[in-house]
Amino acid sequence: MKEIIEELIKFRNERDWEQFHNPKDLALAINVEAGELLELFLWKDPSDANPNKIKEELADVFAFAFLLADKYKFDVREIVLEKIKKNGEKYPIDKAKGTAKKYDEL
Amino acid sequence: MKEIIEELIKFRNERDWEQFHNPKDLALAINVEAGELLELFLWKDPSDANPNKIKEELADVFAFAFLLADKYKFDVREIVLEKIKKNGEKYPIDKAKGTAKKYDEL
Amino acid sequence: MKEIIEELIKFRNERDWEQFHNPKDLALAINVEAGELLELFLWKDPSDANPNKIKEELADVFAFAFLLADKYKFDVREIVLEKIKKNGEKYPIDKAKGTAKKYDEL
Amino acid sequence: MKEIIEELIKFRNERDWEQFHNPKDLALAINVEAGELLELFLWKDPSDANPNKIKEELADVFAFAFLLADKYKFDVREIVLEKIKKNGEKYPIDKAKGTAKKYDEL
Repeated sequence: MKEIIEELIKFRNERDWEQFHNPKDLALAINVEAGELLELFLWKDPSDANPNKIKEELADVFAFAFLLADKYKFDVREIVLEKIKKNGEKYPIDKAKGTAKKYDEL
Repeated sequence: MKEIIEELIKFRNERDWEQFHNPKDLALAINVEAGELLELFLWKDPSDANPNKIKEELADVFAFAFLLADKYKFDVREIVLEKIKKNGEKYPIDKAKGTAKKYDEL
Repeated sequence: MKEIIEELIKFRNERDWEQFHNPKDLALAINVEAGELLELFLWKDPSDANPNKIKEELADVFAFAFLLADKYKFDVREIVLEKIKKNGEKYPIDKAKGTAKKYDEL
Repeated sequence: MKEIIEELIKFRNERDWEQFHNPKDLALAINVEAGELLELFLWKDPSDANPNKIKEELADVFAFAFLLADKYKFDVREIVLEKIKKNGEKYPIDKAKGTAKKYDEL
């Protein structure tokens, strides 16, 4: 992951784009890219979306997510593992197994 | 990253949630989490958002993005580096430097 | 508003699109269009976004929002006025005045 | 629609919130609410979402969409009818009938 972040920052700095990349606009960018990803599934069965396009839009989501993580010096591995632990408390196996209910409805 | 994906899948399988995790709903989930991340910046200066909450919502975005990548067996490092290369062609340094314009307006 | 909804439904039916317009995909469509609207503000000061493009993307948000309202036979005027009343309880004037805090932080 | 917009503005002004309601944050708010609407459909069949909750989240989408329209003094009826006309050119009936393809794939 270090390599990805370094490449993203190199790309950004070569274009002098850090001035635009405040955390709020990076969060906006994640939403914009997430919306483009979602569009690939619109009006379709899940299996009918185009994997090559999904690959590109998902890569964009990751790119801005990594850049936002870098802004706060978050370690992506650490914050995801921490969140999994926290979600484990919200969704204990015995209550959450086999149901898609939200934690406040379990 | 392998470890993150393995932990996410373990969490999912312990709860028998794979049945819900089709690609379309995973793309939905990314959008839902991206929206919760965005809410932390709403009506605020970028610097006034709460980093602890950002950490959690961003972790959720990553979690579903990794799960969607896993569905298609995408290598995250590979697809992001590939996209950086492609974006380099859309945004050549000499044209894109210092401007936030979209590629079709350069 | 009746006229707008009638025109939207006429447009949809002429194209035989009702088969695609289930409530879930309409909610997806609202998100996709909201993302396109958001993109017009990305990396920009609020005043630098292009009003002509905003007009079009906002119109798309309205279009799918009206179609989703129609699916459930919601009266848009009624549901918005009802929500204003409910929000008035969550955000009492004396507590909410001049602050952008969320109701659970007031 | 006039009445809705007047009530929304009254609600906003009583709380002195106009200072926060720049167009960019209103577009953010639309996305945040659209995400909350989308969450009601997550992991579910379209028919399993809760209409009472949909009513509330959809009302929030409408509320911020009307407030953004008001910022630019757009007439909602006019911009939607205009967009329907424009979409009619992108999706001519004979080509678009019965297919969910995007206009650039027709």
